[in-house]
Amino acid sequence: MILDKSQLAALETPCVVLDVGLARRNIEAMQKLADAAGCRLRPHVKTHKMPLFARMQVEAGAAGITCAKVSEAEVMALGGLEDIFIAYPLVGAFRIRRALELAKKLKRLILAVDSLAGAEALNAAAAEAGTRFEVRLEIDTGAKRTGVPLETAADLALAISNLKNLELTGIYTFKSLNYQGKPTEDAELAAREEGDLMEQAASAIAGRGIILKDISGGSSPTGPALLKTGKVNEIRPGTYIFNDLMLCSEGVASPENVAVRFAATVVSCPRDDYAVIDGGTKCFPTDIALNTAPFQYTGYARIEGKDHLRLDRMNEEHGIIRSVEGKTGLSVGEVITLIPIHVCTAINMQNSVYLLENNVLRREKVEARGMLV
Amino acid sequence: MILDKSQLAALETPCVVLDVGLARRNIEAMQKLADAAGCRLRPHVKTHKMPLFARMQVEAGAAGITCAKVSEAEVMALGGLEDIFIAYPLVGAFRIRRALELAKKLKRLILAVDSLAGAEALNAAAAEAGTRFEVRLEIDTGAKRTGVPLETAADLALAISNLKNLELTGIYTFKSLNYQGKPTEDAELAAREEGDLMEQAASAIAGRGIILKDISGGSSPTGPALLKTGKVNEIRPGTYIFNDLMLCSEGVASPENVAVRFAATVVSCPRDDYAVIDGGTKCFPTDIALNTAPFQYTGYARIEGKDHLRLDRMNEEHGIIRSVEGKTGLSVGEVITLIPIHVCTAINMQNSVYLLENNVLRREKVEARGMLV
Repeated sequence: MILDKSQLAALETPCVVLDVGLARRNIEAMQKLADAAGCRLRPHVKTHKMPLFARMQVEAGAAGITCAKVSEAEVMALGGLEDIFIAYPLVGAFRIRRALELAKKLKRLILAVDSLAGAEALNAAAAEAGTRFEVRLEIDTGAKRTGVPLETAADLALAISNLKNLELTGIYTFKSLNYQGKPTEDAELAAREEGDLMEQAASAIAGRGIILKDISGGSSPTGPALLKTGKVNEIRPGTYIFNDLMLCSEGVASPENVAVRFAATVVSCPRDDYAVIDGGTKCFPTDIALNTAPFQYTGYARIEGKDHLRLDRMNEEHGIIRSVEGKTGLSVGEVITLIPIHVCTAINMQNSVYLLENNVLRREKVEARGMLV
Repeated sequence: MILDKSQLAALETPCVVLDVGLARRNIEAMQKLADAAGCRLRPHVKTHKMPLFARMQVEAGAAGITCAKVSEAEVMALGGLEDIFIAYPLVGAFRIRRALELAKKLKRLILAVDSLAGAEALNAAAAEAGTRFEVRLEIDTGAKRTGVPLETAADLALAISNLKNLELTGIYTFKSLNYQGKPTEDAELAAREEGDLMEQAASAIAGRGIILKDISGGSSPTGPALLKTGKVNEIRPGTYIFNDLMLCSEGVASPENVAVRFAATVVSCPRDDYAVIDGGTKCFPTDIALNTAPFQYTGYARIEGKDHLRLDRMNEEHGIIRSVEGKTGLSVGEVITLIPIHVCTAINMQNSVYLLENNVLRREKVEARGMLV
């Protein structure tokens, strides 16, 4: 992804630029892998937060989409998406009310549970509304966040399947390579463990007489390896559409497939050894700890074509760039481009982004940004 | 600030709640300090990002407001604010175009410069438009970001004052107590240094025959001490309107004056020793390094009334709370409240917030959130 001089000059910085052609190629490559393995692809929209890209994923062959929150799913429904899995325990009366409304607008809405309390509340609301919710049970395969441990999965699945207004059709999990800032293992290994644990969970649940339709796993790092195991029939990667430095450092993406850039203007060069760009912690994500290998040498984003520069200090609107060679060589008014460490949170900071397609730049609103509920 | 059970139950979480009455008291307290010292108060709107609160500050006696970006100032102008200082070097043709339009709508617009290149571009644009820009020169008093060093300030001021379409009326600075995550000094000491350096800068500039009208400094931590020095005639604090854990830890705010809370719902309790709330790095700011004293014991936010709990791991939509006592004691569906470490970035993550006023909750859009240009 290369922006020429006139394109850089046309940008109102600081901003995010997405290469639509490259995103399309990333979408197609993942779809091809899934198709070849006979596995469904249900991409997570948390990365792009835009119905435009979700539609592109479905048109390329995705079985539906994945959201994290009901408010995010509402935006996608408005954007024409019809088959949505909200892969996040749906808890809270306010959220259940919104899910009931949303279900009416979709061909298929799948909700998530990971506790009996959560399942019972969903069931009661569905009963009162005279409807049923399709649900999947989340299994923990090592992320230690939401998801029940393997040892209690079958008991909980049985209890859920006894609730009349819920239809338990699947199990799902999330496994990444990066926990608490530390990449702990390689993608193949993680995917093998993920597949094995999901197979065990499905088999334990089958032992209670419950036949599951959907076994879903696979993040951007583990997805491509996981679908080859044949132990899941759906993967839900998100970041693969644009990629970022994190995925590159994990060995599952390469720089030429990174379809996202920041552009920023140098606003101040008070001394030779540092300069300031027009974006800080309100523009660049900070959700990767700086002192964590392998990011320690890049800072909060990698400055393209200027390996001697580091963005490793920020205030709200100030990105302070230092030189490891004594002089930054930057000048006031210069526009630089940067590659984000984490694209999902980078896009979520923006109200709108620039799309670059057929060499033409245009603005697009990030419709689902900040959809937290 | 206390939310009762029925108020907590009315919230769609995760969310930010602001106590309007308490904010008003914080506004009045700072105004009183400024008035008593005969110093103007020009609050920074970066903290609240809402015209509603900016108007409240002006109605309480503020001389005008401060913004960081031209897009933020545009929102404030639409909201009825008429006297705005954009305290950030105004660099970039796109930004200058917007500033020219903005100036037509305001009684007073003050721009910032910290380089000759920046000043010349502003001057040329103003000349072409047949107008003049009022500008202030930024001085570095230790933040090492934007702002010229003291030793070159007078030369630059002279060069700027020779530009026909700029009117140099003041100097300004920003000094906080927290650089690179380390609180390095106390507020009184920092304010004294800030005042001394600004006095030296003004005097060096006066030596070139330039009489400045406005000497502006003072953040929330240094402002109250700085105005007592008599060495500035304007302060620009922002965070004081709501306060946060950072200001409390710096000894310049107390917990009873913190007018902001997060509310979050517990969505998952898979094991006794951890639980998951419905907000992560897309909701809670991460711009304070976790391993930095004095924040290391609180995590990314302090959980109210539950001192055994820590929010110190997050994914995009997951806040993973661990117990230092073995058991969290949390249950699925429970709503908890948290005090943010940094309120400015906390509010900037939200599309809207709840306002609590006279015991009534209502929604308010964060109009200038994500206004980065």
